[in-house]
Amino acid sequence: MARKKKEIRTDIGWSDADHITVFGRDFPNEILGHLNLGDMGFLELTGRFPTPAESRMFNAMVVTLVEHGITPSAIVARLTYLGAPESLQGAVAAGLNGLGTVFVGSIEAVARMLYEAMPVADPQADVAALARQVVKSFAESKRIVPGIGHPVHKPADPRAARLQQLAAENGFDGPYLRLAEAIADEAGRSLGKVLPMNATGAIGALCCTMGFDWKICRGLGVMARAVGLVGHILEESRRPMGEEIWHHIDEIATAHMRPGAGEEKQ
Amino acid sequence: MARKKKEIRTDIGWSDADHITVFGRDFPNEILGHLNLGDMGFLELTGRFPTPAESRMFNAMVVTLVEHGITPSAIVARLTYLGAPESLQGAVAAGLNGLGTVFVGSIEAVARMLYEAMPVADPQADVAALARQVVKSFAESKRIVPGIGHPVHKPADPRAARLQQLAAENGFDGPYLRLAEAIADEAGRSLGKVLPMNATGAIGALCCTMGFDWKICRGLGVMARAVGLVGHILEESRRPMGEEIWHHIDEIATAHMRPGAGEEKQ
Amino acid sequence: MARKKKEIRTDIGWSDADHITVFGRDFPNEILGHLNLGDMGFLELTGRFPTPAESRMFNAMVVTLVEHGITPSAIVARLTYLGAPESLQGAVAAGLNGLGTVFVGSIEAVARMLYEAMPVADPQADVAALARQVVKSFAESKRIVPGIGHPVHKPADPRAARLQQLAAENGFDGPYLRLAEAIADEAGRSLGKVLPMNATGAIGALCCTMGFDWKICRGLGVMARAVGLVGHILEESRRPMGEEIWHHIDEIATAHMRPGAGEEKQ
Amino acid sequence: MARKKKEIRTDIGWSDADHITVFGRDFPNEILGHLNLGDMGFLELTGRFPTPAESRMFNAMVVTLVEHGITPSAIVARLTYLGAPESLQGAVAAGLNGLGTVFVGSIEAVARMLYEAMPVADPQADVAALARQVVKSFAESKRIVPGIGHPVHKPADPRAARLQQLAAENGFDGPYLRLAEAIADEAGRSLGKVLPMNATGAIGALCCTMGFDWKICRGLGVMARAVGLVGHILEESRRPMGEEIWHHIDEIATAHMRPGAGEEKQ
Repeated sequence: MARKKKEIRTDIGWSDADHITVFGRDFPNEILGHLNLGDMGFLELTGRFPTPAESRMFNAMVVTLVEHGITPSAIVARLTYLGAPESLQGAVAAGLNGLGTVFVGSIEAVARMLYEAMPVADPQADVAALARQVVKSFAESKRIVPGIGHPVHKPADPRAARLQQLAAENGFDGPYLRLAEAIADEAGRSLGKVLPMNATGAIGALCCTMGFDWKICRGLGVMARAVGLVGHILEESRRPMGEEIWHHIDEIATAHMRPGAGEEKQ
Repeated sequence: MARKKKEIRTDIGWSDADHITVFGRDFPNEILGHLNLGDMGFLELTGRFPTPAESRMFNAMVVTLVEHGITPSAIVARLTYLGAPESLQGAVAAGLNGLGTVFVGSIEAVARMLYEAMPVADPQADVAALARQVVKSFAESKRIVPGIGHPVHKPADPRAARLQQLAAENGFDGPYLRLAEAIADEAGRSLGKVLPMNATGAIGALCCTMGFDWKICRGLGVMARAVGLVGHILEESRRPMGEEIWHHIDEIATAHMRPGAGEEKQ
Repeated sequence: MARKKKEIRTDIGWSDADHITVFGRDFPNEILGHLNLGDMGFLELTGRFPTPAESRMFNAMVVTLVEHGITPSAIVARLTYLGAPESLQGAVAAGLNGLGTVFVGSIEAVARMLYEAMPVADPQADVAALARQVVKSFAESKRIVPGIGHPVHKPADPRAARLQQLAAENGFDGPYLRLAEAIADEAGRSLGKVLPMNATGAIGALCCTMGFDWKICRGLGVMARAVGLVGHILEESRRPMGEEIWHHIDEIATAHMRPGAGEEKQ
Repeated sequence: MARKKKEIRTDIGWSDADHITVFGRDFPNEILGHLNLGDMGFLELTGRFPTPAESRMFNAMVVTLVEHGITPSAIVARLTYLGAPESLQGAVAAGLNGLGTVFVGSIEAVARMLYEAMPVADPQADVAALARQVVKSFAESKRIVPGIGHPVHKPADPRAARLQQLAAENGFDGPYLRLAEAIADEAGRSLGKVLPMNATGAIGALCCTMGFDWKICRGLGVMARAVGLVGHILEESRRPMGEEIWHHIDEIATAHMRPGAGEEKQ
């Protein structure tokens, strides 16, 4: 009859009057001044400090996702700030809500695809053969292969090439990155297009190389974009565009219903 | 009759098929691999790269705000993930919504207070005299002086001492930090309590030293906490506490209304 | 080379100096004072005014979803208000973020399941046969049949029975509701349990009866819960529980890490 | 040393296997089928059922706030849905985040202003004299009088006139509505403009007439807009404008930075 109770437990950290302990470390003295913000993200995801190579690679991965100019999330943050300038956190929160399956969520889709094809990184794997299986399976179930091509960056996403270069320099150009590239090649070939691995494709592969759960991979984008949206709100506070976006879009979207619309528009 | 149009303009960045330009830089080649995530935040707030000292100081400021164990924002993110595990970004967004005037917003209140007392950093300022004016003004208008004392960390917030140390090492222990300390001293004296400058007090003073608009200062907390909340959601996905929090709190909160409550409880 | 432009167009409404037109109606004079809030929701979903029977049924459907005491969404709204009391809208927004696939999203899963089994309401349909196919298909793909059983309300969800009664009184007890009941019967039989149709099951079936897109069905829950969460924030502003929830959960969740935890707890 | 515990208690409702009690009522049998969605909102705010006149008036107040075409909140919801179509609740949540001090929050500012001027509704009050004091006080502290004028609806907001008519028909045209009108007259006179009471002005006054806490008054807007935003997302799912808004705004906002911009634009 009585409810079966479950445990309420965290291992992330605790504090009392004079201690703050985070992942087993003395937070003020062992972490502050020692880790940069990206390293702190790595600690959150792994429970340990990054090596210097991991620090360089992980920071590059998240920095990639901070800023891409006037994105939907930036417009959302700015329009939210227009109505609630007292609530910067609400504007950022609103902007983050759109980082779903269509945009940043593709990192997670890539990581899942790669883990399903190669559960453990195998340096001997025949990535071309695995890629053929993956592309075939996606085609059969009419799913779109994630992490390849880009609506704007054609033929190639310049961020992906740079991430590959950094991966090579830091020792992360292992089986998952090679598999992701092979999948992009195979998908392009099967569709008769040039569809190189894009930035989220590279980041998804690097997440696998670092051993992150695929479920958490869009978290890199969420961490990162929060940083970028604060920058957009700062610019909005100095040079606002929100109000003009509103009226401009309203005029376009409702023009066909306004008096006299029929004559002018036909 | 016609609406007066305003400008829609950003200076943050633009991209085309093969370029991504952010704050005037070639994003893939000049930023990726060169800036860490905190540096990227500094770039968003200032439009320029940090110096090495600024990089160390700014990263320490934001890392301070990433993690503090089971905070309200962490509980919120976990309970949101319980209902919508497909939407990690929504769980982080929900958690960020609470970073308002009571918690992280105090950074902004500190920065505003310091800028009003000393609009430009003045190495010759009599900070004790300024502090007396500030504390008197807050007392007269029955406002609470922000950035001092802490409900848990007594007598002193260990993060504040560490930030002061890092400020001294990196050359940020200037007039604003001295003024913030003087205000804490004066407020404690006038109330007959020990109320040292806390972490948000130190960060607010450092924001002024770096010249950030006070309106954007809670943005440091928003950037930072997004990183920490991803870590909480990862732990929640592996060792969930959300469902038990729900039932446990429901039982406590409704016990007085349930049948037989009167007899047992009296 | 040039981007192919798409249309930006709404048919919901427009306004100018002295008109506000919504779904083709003079909003102040034809809608205000004529429609209640639920009717307005019906208008948003269908573009037309409800009949008296539709008004009674739709209002009952959404009212069902307004309030269920201390839910995760209510705790989330309260904890968010604790940190940002200046931003009631942010607290409600945070609470709504959790209405995903696990809770209110089940309405959408029910509607989708019913539409796939019976694309058009067919009074002659053999609902028992369709139910057997549905339950078999869910079992084969190891998916859980949505809209049946309840963790608290056993054996039966009292809201479902009441919604069935109202459906009968207002003429909505057609093929979709019969199919949903048949699926609950069949699923219970195949699992050897009593798993009656629950409230979201009934509402999902009624959404199909009203012809709503399955993609929008969780929208009824979102509309409704926004109303309830405002009530929770009002109570929180008068009798706060957020701060105590925070400290209470923190103490439980971190007890095992605190000094001396080993001795006491073993 | 030990933390002083506070109470965790709700009086909104509780449930067990076969009961759901809300505000002391049997929820399935006394509320479902008896209250419409607006009435349920009234119950959340007052703890009691509305009278027929209160039901008509309160429903009109909230319906007023459901829909106003392409607002910033509607654009935000649509752009969020573009990135996360799997998360309707996140799109609505994002849209609600903008209902702050600038837009819907003005209801709360009106209610606060009226309560401060006349703490208890006084049928004998000299509303013209009170209005002069209010307008003088706002002018002296350089604050803008809320609830008057409208950027689009000139000279008068047609919703306000209709709400006044409904208030008269239902017996809510008491001292607070008269005071709000007097303040609008006085503010217009002192500024040499025509600034009639707008919709949020009327709703704020009606909130006072109904005795709502001013802190909760923007909650009416939040409840209501959640209903409208579901309608916008439905239209977005059928006739999307989000992607075109993104690219269109990006092109305008970044045109000055693109190669060749100098020549064309000078």
